[in-house]
Amino acid sequence: MTSTLYHATGSPNSRRVRMFIAEKGLQVPMVPVDLGNKEQFSDAYKAINPRSMVPTLVLTDGTSVAEVPAIWRYLEEAYPEQPLLGRTATEKALVAMWERRAELDGFAAVMEAVRNAVPGLAGRALAGPHFYEQIPELAERSRLRLVNFYADLNQRLLTTPFVAGEHFSVADITALVTLDFGKAALKMAIGEDQTALQAWYENVAARPSALA
Amino acid sequence: MTSTLYHATGSPNSRRVRMFIAEKGLQVPMVPVDLGNKEQFSDAYKAINPRSMVPTLVLTDGTSVAEVPAIWRYLEEAYPEQPLLGRTATEKALVAMWERRAELDGFAAVMEAVRNAVPGLAGRALAGPHFYEQIPELAERSRLRLVNFYADLNQRLLTTPFVAGEHFSVADITALVTLDFGKAALKMAIGEDQTALQAWYENVAARPSALA
Repeated sequence: MTSTLYHATGSPNSRRVRMFIAEKGLQVPMVPVDLGNKEQFSDAYKAINPRSMVPTLVLTDGTSVAEVPAIWRYLEEAYPEQPLLGRTATEKALVAMWERRAELDGFAAVMEAVRNAVPGLAGRALAGPHFYEQIPELAERSRLRLVNFYADLNQRLLTTPFVAGEHFSVADITALVTLDFGKAALKMAIGEDQTALQAWYENVAARPSALA
Repeated sequence: MTSTLYHATGSPNSRRVRMFIAEKGLQVPMVPVDLGNKEQFSDAYKAINPRSMVPTLVLTDGTSVAEVPAIWRYLEEAYPEQPLLGRTATEKALVAMWERRAELDGFAAVMEAVRNAVPGLAGRALAGPHFYEQIPELAERSRLRLVNFYADLNQRLLTTPFVAGEHFSVADITALVTLDFGKAALKMAIGEDQTALQAWYENVAARPSALA
């Protein structure tokens, strides 16, 4: 294992990959990228990822793999033990489905709410190489989406121990990172009546990988 | 093969799956869902997909698989010939990366531009079970994103014959569906100077699967 992960401590997308690596018990060298000093826009980092986003996994042959699900896919193929993307064809599909819902309904909504509201991210309403102005109305809508996401996820967890079914998977990673970032950045809390969500959260947050 | 695809003719997401099926040469029974008459909100369809979205693949055991990448993953695992998600671990990662970029930068931008602007979609600014009001400013920003996507894709195609590299893949499917829907719904055209994008488009649009 000599692939290298470029990441940032406070980046929720980086955490999605660090948790995955921790769950698999892999030893991956990690290089921090200083987002506070805009290191992602440096020539050195743009040579690794022209889109100036973290995380990026650089393989031993120099290939850069960006985008969280793509990095997960590489690591799962290369190190199939402790599968986190599903075991059978059906399970792989259901993990992909539930992870995507957690991302589109939850994770993307938190990011959108933060990027369209935080003064320091003016002009950076979307991650990537292009600059877009913030839309305050969008930040408001994102909060509403997040309220719906928490309610939907609570419903789901009334029927299964983990987001995608019987096994811990990347769907749980994305959901946990969403809730933690929603709490830290937006003060979004689990509702008092959302007991299934609360029980799942306590269970998943207690895994050693959650510290990654 | 007795899985069944619930889809809609005019739905770009449905087309992403139909093209995939056509490329693989699979025979999948298809059941149309009449979006014009809001059949996706009927009790019968909600029993198949509680989120009222198309497409959905219903497996022989009754399992519903929704979300385009999840349906692709199931079909690729079950029918590995004519791989469209990559061959090696590295290729699978790069296909996932490039397809995701085409989706987030291109496909999602077209959908967002349409959903936040078309009068008939008032209150339906996001697909799914929840209702959100349109944000006209967002529709404008989406058009700008699409302009950037076309330019970025043209740059990429100066270096590779297909979006993810040497082979046709789901990244090409998402990009083609994006361009076709962008042209039909938003009158977005390939720029005259975007010769690599134009050449790729003509090549990919000529595949029999593009008629799916």
